[in-house]
Amino acid sequence: MSSSPSLVELVTALTCLPGVGQKSAQRMALYLIERDQNGARRLANATLDALEKVQHCKQCRNFSDTDLCEICASDKRGSGTLCVVETPADVLAIEASGAFQGTYFVLLGRLSPLDGIGPDQLGLDELEKYLVESSVEEIILATSATVEGDITAQFVADIARKFNINTSRLARGIPLGGELEYVDSGTLSRALSGRQQYS
Amino acid sequence: MSSSPSLVELVTALTCLPGVGQKSAQRMALYLIERDQNGARRLANATLDALEKVQHCKQCRNFSDTDLCEICASDKRGSGTLCVVETPADVLAIEASGAFQGTYFVLLGRLSPLDGIGPDQLGLDELEKYLVESSVEEIILATSATVEGDITAQFVADIARKFNINTSRLARGIPLGGELEYVDSGTLSRALSGRQQYS
Repeated sequence: MSSSPSLVELVTALTCLPGVGQKSAQRMALYLIERDQNGARRLANATLDALEKVQHCKQCRNFSDTDLCEICASDKRGSGTLCVVETPADVLAIEASGAFQGTYFVLLGRLSPLDGIGPDQLGLDELEKYLVESSVEEIILATSATVEGDITAQFVADIARKFNINTSRLARGIPLGGELEYVDSGTLSRALSGRQQYS
Repeated sequence: MSSSPSLVELVTALTCLPGVGQKSAQRMALYLIERDQNGARRLANATLDALEKVQHCKQCRNFSDTDLCEICASDKRGSGTLCVVETPADVLAIEASGAFQGTYFVLLGRLSPLDGIGPDQLGLDELEKYLVESSVEEIILATSATVEGDITAQFVADIARKFNINTSRLARGIPLGGELEYVDSGTLSRALSGRQQYS
């Protein structure tokens, strides 16, 4: 690599990717230049294109190329149920399950006073404004199952109460395919206290 | 992701990288757009820059930004010993060992008639031409320890013989830190037959 400064720079630039160290970056750089120059060109252009176009949806704060994202703009999605999530990655995960047909609101974070993330950073004002204009009947609090996630859910629930909107939280329990032996005790305790009538 | 076509395209483009599947690509794309836009811009520019600038060194066929690579152009490298390797990655590996101060010749492949790779593709003509002009005294055959690598080494050795140049091959044996119990039998057999006087 010492023989080509532009390759050295490409290797260094590749290490900015999460999970990519010096060795993998070197392998990627050589692969791009040796065997997939078209792929490399496509990657560079896609990156510049995304940097230029991607913005936040004015309504749900998810990533979007347009003012209103495709989910918010779609007339196939019911606006009666609003799913509040922390990140765009959470939207992807829920969309991949195919079990939700409503719309989203993306907080882009979770309450964490120590990191300087308060209600303002999470766009809760925008959420209130949206609730005034819309006809949301239920808010699903789909924040993480962590302490910060729970506190964030509590904040959103307080807002929902002001508007007399029902709130629900994702069920906690044993994951599909989970063997009791390997489930941690906290999850098991939640699964027991939240047990449901067997029909 | 369904909400932003340019993000979808970035994810697809990232999957061209070796070892990166759909899930990792998604994580990388969100990371670049959410948290490291400067890194993303640097990556795109470095890729385009490398695509434009990287060529093969006229002398050793390694990657280079200039006609003559930094190793060939350096006056700190002895031209008496020539190390013949298969790929630019091999040059990096040897350079990282710090144990070689001569120059390289990169075959950019190994003989593999079934894949249509013959002596012409490996630049053996260029190697001969270089040997005529230069003062190489020893050629280190540093091709892979595989059947194709051995055959390739044989071809290069035949050329060296024409010019009355000494040839050597990288030592085969037990790798540093290798425990006998886990070394494969072929390697062990080579290590036995190639045993050296204990001083």
